[in-house]
Amino acid sequence: MSLAHTSALGGARRPRRDNSRAKILAAAEQVFARDGLAGARTDAIAAEAKVNKALLYYYFKSKESLYEAVVEEHMRAFNAKALELLTAPGAAKTILLRYVDMHFDFMSQHRRHAALFQQVMMRGGKPPERLCRKYIVPRSAALRHLLERGQRDGEFRQAEPFHAAISIAALIVFYFSAAPVLQVLGFADPYSASALKRRKEEVVNFVRYALFVKPELSVP
Amino acid sequence: MSLAHTSALGGARRPRRDNSRAKILAAAEQVFARDGLAGARTDAIAAEAKVNKALLYYYFKSKESLYEAVVEEHMRAFNAKALELLTAPGAAKTILLRYVDMHFDFMSQHRRHAALFQQVMMRGGKPPERLCRKYIVPRSAALRHLLERGQRDGEFRQAEPFHAAISIAALIVFYFSAAPVLQVLGFADPYSASALKRRKEEVVNFVRYALFVKPELSVP
Repeated sequence: MSLAHTSALGGARRPRRDNSRAKILAAAEQVFARDGLAGARTDAIAAEAKVNKALLYYYFKSKESLYEAVVEEHMRAFNAKALELLTAPGAAKTILLRYVDMHFDFMSQHRRHAALFQQVMMRGGKPPERLCRKYIVPRSAALRHLLERGQRDGEFRQAEPFHAAISIAALIVFYFSAAPVLQVLGFADPYSASALKRRKEEVVNFVRYALFVKPELSVP
Repeated sequence: MSLAHTSALGGARRPRRDNSRAKILAAAEQVFARDGLAGARTDAIAAEAKVNKALLYYYFKSKESLYEAVVEEHMRAFNAKALELLTAPGAAKTILLRYVDMHFDFMSQHRRHAALFQQVMMRGGKPPERLCRKYIVPRSAALRHLLERGQRDGEFRQAEPFHAAISIAALIVFYFSAAPVLQVLGFADPYSASALKRRKEEVVNFVRYALFVKPELSVP
């Protein structure tokens, strides 16, 4: 935060942090989704959040730090659900399919997450270690442990868990990263309810056949 | 091409197109791989190609058009091999595994292709229709036809071919897009010969189990 921004706040008391910050983050997600990363303007985000631009810069020093914060908020929210689900008791195959379903729905509901995530990960040529260690490391470890448990219990075939975890993420995430290309290929709208439903079914079946010892018997 | 660049060529005859252009493209690929997209400089590319910078700008009007040309050259070379392979006679499952092997090797050999491709596809917020129509449309159609043929012949289970094609691409491409993150996660070097060999084996098995009616009997 620069001094210029402090004085632009008119030397007022520190604003109520949570409410304004959350409003700016929600507005930023909207504006990034509507205008894209390059097209999004902090003026539009401030207007959408109904705060002045100085307040936006009080919390986020640049558009870049704002979209990093949007991505971190996504990762935090997703990890909370994912870790609870992945470490729950129950048959590993049931939990795995629930996780796939949940990850897919999360990506469906955050249309710009894939693009924002890539932008954050590739800024400056390498991924921010803090975000990777805080969110991706524990989640990928939990997924690997679930796969190992399912292999020990004879539910999953012996695929290398690290690679199986990458493959599961690939099947879910790639569709969303590729959505703009799919659209050019004449795939009407990759985000329509029917397209998402179909893709999710295909992903679930792909994972089931790829990993389950008895794919046809499994109940989602 | 600006007039400044023409005059910088000293009004000489048109340079021998193919040789210089190919040298610049090869140098650009090297420099992008070494310095990343943001870090790569056209001076370094001209030096690596042993041409003067004016000549580089004679062929490519900007760094952006240069990396688009690198990507197009990758897509052209890959499509030539892919279409020949995908439309060859023979058991669909044998051809599919050869295609997976070839696509994976192509990605292994062009370390920056995933990053360059994404950059080109997302420039200006949407993918260049010309590249999509010229390269991705015919290749994805050929892959779909192969999958349909394998289903008719009872080699593959009834997965929706469009989605199965996306899933196959996902398993191959995502590892390379995610390589910088994998490195932060402590995965020593995703491009080491042993890591690539292992990933390819896991992808081939994943595809085989996911799609083949008799995965255990299939010979690559």
